[in-house]
Amino acid sequence: MIGVGVEQRVSLITLGVADVERARAFYEALGWRCANDSKAQGVAFFQAGCMVVALWGREELARDCGLEPTPPGGFGGFALAYNVRSPAEVDEVLAHAEEAGATIMRPGAETFWGGYSGLFLDPDGHPWEVAHNPRWTVAEDGSVTI
Amino acid sequence: MIGVGVEQRVSLITLGVADVERARAFYEALGWRCANDSKAQGVAFFQAGCMVVALWGREELARDCGLEPTPPGGFGGFALAYNVRSPAEVDEVLAHAEEAGATIMRPGAETFWGGYSGLFLDPDGHPWEVAHNPRWTVAEDGSVTI
Repeated sequence: MIGVGVEQRVSLITLGVADVERARAFYEALGWRCANDSKAQGVAFFQAGCMVVALWGREELARDCGLEPTPPGGFGGFALAYNVRSPAEVDEVLAHAEEAGATIMRPGAETFWGGYSGLFLDPDGHPWEVAHNPRWTVAEDGSVTI
Repeated sequence: MIGVGVEQRVSLITLGVADVERARAFYEALGWRCANDSKAQGVAFFQAGCMVVALWGREELARDCGLEPTPPGGFGGFALAYNVRSPAEVDEVLAHAEEAGATIMRPGAETFWGGYSGLFLDPDGHPWEVAHNPRWTVAEDGSVTI
């Protein structure tokens, strides 16, 4: 099908969670604000820059993908990253995430790729790297350009 | 740690893959363009709107998260979505993805939430919903606002 290009973007990341309200509370403790009535709708949406992050029941999400549900907690084949503007901010965000209930898997440290990063798991085991990459620009609006 | 807010955004999604060059070829067949020398660096980066999508070896990514590698192919606890501007475009993108080597898990159809969507898996089993949501705006630049 020549001529139908897929634009280079992601609209939505949905994270499968055990309990939408618990997961929402974690992201709100980080400082995010939910955009909808998650209790009534059974799903929580967060505007995240140019895209949306959703929290939805893990089993429902698996079925929606046509896949068998799997137990939470293991490596899911992906990781998210939150890039910041300095190494010190990496440490601050990791400390803040830990207070909000995250599990720190790597404290902030220099990386093999020349930056500084650490990594936490959210309460459902989804990995978030917190990184300062001196070669990538984080704009005022938070967008990241390679 | 009062006062350290985490901005409401995602900088990077890294997908664990069996073979970076094969995965890169799939996303390029969709119409994306890689931003770096993936063969030399062992990782492929794609600018994706305000953020970046990376393809990296699944085992290396697991270890980087401090987690045990898991076999590919099952449900990983997450899904991505690509929102488009009409139901017809959902069908076009799904057909295009299938030609590029994706596995269609759901053909385009009306959804319980009042939109129209289908879903494919990329060659490493990562789920992408292709969706038209009449209540969400897809801007000219591809950004999605709830």
